[in-house]
Amino acid sequence: MAVGLNPPEQLHPVKGIRLAALHSGIKADPACKDLTLIEVAAQANIAAVFTTNKFCAAPVTVAQEHLRQHPEPRYLIINSGNANAGTGRNGYQHALMSCRYIATSAGVDESQVLPFSTGVIAQELPVACIENSADQLFDKLDDDNWLPAAEGIMTTDTLPKAISVQVEIEGKLISISGMAKGSGMIKPDMATMLSFIATDAEIDATELQSMLTALVSTSFNAITVDGDTSTNDACVLIATGKSGAKVSAETPVFIKAITQVFQGLAQSIIRDGEGATKFVEVEVSNANSLADAREVGYTVAQSPLVKTALFASDPNWGRILAAVGRAKISALDIDRVDLYLGDTCLLKNGLPDPGYSEELGQAEMNKAEIRIHINLNSGNATAKIWTSDLSYDYVKINAEYRS
Amino acid sequence: MAVGLNPPEQLHPVKGIRLAALHSGIKADPACKDLTLIEVAAQANIAAVFTTNKFCAAPVTVAQEHLRQHPEPRYLIINSGNANAGTGRNGYQHALMSCRYIATSAGVDESQVLPFSTGVIAQELPVACIENSADQLFDKLDDDNWLPAAEGIMTTDTLPKAISVQVEIEGKLISISGMAKGSGMIKPDMATMLSFIATDAEIDATELQSMLTALVSTSFNAITVDGDTSTNDACVLIATGKSGAKVSAETPVFIKAITQVFQGLAQSIIRDGEGATKFVEVEVSNANSLADAREVGYTVAQSPLVKTALFASDPNWGRILAAVGRAKISALDIDRVDLYLGDTCLLKNGLPDPGYSEELGQAEMNKAEIRIHINLNSGNATAKIWTSDLSYDYVKINAEYRS
Repeated sequence: MAVGLNPPEQLHPVKGIRLAALHSGIKADPACKDLTLIEVAAQANIAAVFTTNKFCAAPVTVAQEHLRQHPEPRYLIINSGNANAGTGRNGYQHALMSCRYIATSAGVDESQVLPFSTGVIAQELPVACIENSADQLFDKLDDDNWLPAAEGIMTTDTLPKAISVQVEIEGKLISISGMAKGSGMIKPDMATMLSFIATDAEIDATELQSMLTALVSTSFNAITVDGDTSTNDACVLIATGKSGAKVSAETPVFIKAITQVFQGLAQSIIRDGEGATKFVEVEVSNANSLADAREVGYTVAQSPLVKTALFASDPNWGRILAAVGRAKISALDIDRVDLYLGDTCLLKNGLPDPGYSEELGQAEMNKAEIRIHINLNSGNATAKIWTSDLSYDYVKINAEYRS
Repeated sequence: MAVGLNPPEQLHPVKGIRLAALHSGIKADPACKDLTLIEVAAQANIAAVFTTNKFCAAPVTVAQEHLRQHPEPRYLIINSGNANAGTGRNGYQHALMSCRYIATSAGVDESQVLPFSTGVIAQELPVACIENSADQLFDKLDDDNWLPAAEGIMTTDTLPKAISVQVEIEGKLISISGMAKGSGMIKPDMATMLSFIATDAEIDATELQSMLTALVSTSFNAITVDGDTSTNDACVLIATGKSGAKVSAETPVFIKAITQVFQGLAQSIIRDGEGATKFVEVEVSNANSLADAREVGYTVAQSPLVKTALFASDPNWGRILAAVGRAKISALDIDRVDLYLGDTCLLKNGLPDPGYSEELGQAEMNKAEIRIHINLNSGNATAKIWTSDLSYDYVKINAEYRS
């Protein structure tokens, strides 16, 4: 059901990063990888953002504690098939044990391992699977394993999601590779379900965290499938420095390349949104503030009535109007609002456009990739939100998730 | 697909109210009534609340203007099949013309007629249908026409919704009868799609408006099907005074009876929610404020993941937890949260209850009427929100709405 989502193209190794993935038994299907290890070279800088959900999962709590305890994480251990969320004190112990098994095999401190989990909520994590697979994971570590690693973090994803770009700066080749997983429970408040991006550029640690925050705001924090913020969201950006090239937020070539990776990964989650038959961009322009633009965009993007109309390819644009009208923003001058589907004008200055016809609207709605543009004509702020439609298959996937 | 919704029982006439309904041609199916007239006796008091959607429909604008212009409305003209929303200046003129046709037939001032519309958004209202049917409507006026009137305001509703109760106060019989329509685009911000309640009790005009606001807050403003606030929401409460009994907010017998009518009508909208297979009550208790309790309740009630789990009768309560955790409230102490499905405890002080088993959860979820109780154990405020599940048929109804 994915919309315009293709298998990953060439994934470049990132100097200073090795990866491994295998089936450990957490998922029932032996053909599905469920455990991924990422090894980070010493002296790399790591920035991370996590879910704001107050019922955050045990691995999120442990990862945040470990990041505070040790400035130099060396391993990320990621399991799929079980979220280790809503699991109380046992869940917290299980997340710690996952780190301990990896630390023991590697000979590093337990706090140098960050745990991540994704999958069913409220079931105990079978940690024995991780204990039994630790040594085998280390045997498999390789810098060319981005694809199996991307497969290892999948849950309801229909395809692995990974993107790689290279740029040359001052005669030195920089690689940026990233992977993400996510398809449902997608309305990240800090980052999407799970995403790991690494570059061998050298980036100052403080700079790296602010760069990550900025990148996330126009990528993982600009998408929604169902408005449900996950308990396990995490996004990690690693800069190993092994390319020998130093970059910062003031390096346009690098920022352009890494933005491409972040937005591409975020959009791939929407293209693979549960039951998605449409990929939809909602652009809100000339709002009074960025917050207003995002609120209007998200209200439209999350409206079940808009999403079912998109599924039906029905240009029932009154539903878009109704969603704009109920968005919680300070002021809305409806006599200034313009509404477009693709390049077709539906509403100009709040009034139906005389040039609009049902046929024009239908032609736009028949497309697999749809652009809704709402111009509020009242300020200077603009935001883009990406979303999918609401189909029979969305209900089917989520009704049958545990069966 | 309605859940526990039965055809209306006996509907008592309300002294001072006459009603009529017929098919005028706005709907294609000649078997469907689409035009309803309510006549209100002189000297009655009328209170009303309307949608807060900024793209409110033309009839909402005109009804509000007419209420300001004339203290004594005498007629309510309600069409179904067309919302007259998103229709610009033409829509405004059409709403005025609807009033004019009724005013001319009745010999009253145009501003004594209030117009209401419900149905498809963004299509022109065929006002000739109203003009051609006006005289016939007056011929049909009768005080015993609550049922045909309730049928006349239906759109995607599967059954008419009307409730009637009688109470005796100081030896005088008071009747309260009300009707409502609504099934989708239901997350009222002031009142539901359309609801008209009348009593022959005598109630002071100022008192009536504050009584309506209070009644709506625990009925129509406590339900959601899809989180989409309509452009046409309106709720009207009429007190004709013809019973000779005077009541106020301090008359417990009356308040209990009228609350029963309001909550019964609001719940009937949820029981008839588009594609509903479950009727769900979300109770949030001991919150720090009423706003917090309502926010948590609505976040759970509107979560597509919770709603699809309800549809599947799947006790996947991690989704409830995830929704509570992302609710936008000031503070949440997760170590105090208790969670119940019916009488079954899932979570006690934020930890999985040792007595819980999947079988117990399954037994609760198999029921057609489900109660989710979230005890925040931090304050004194409590709210109840009623909602339905998210089924294949919800998607089907909304994907095929205009086809």
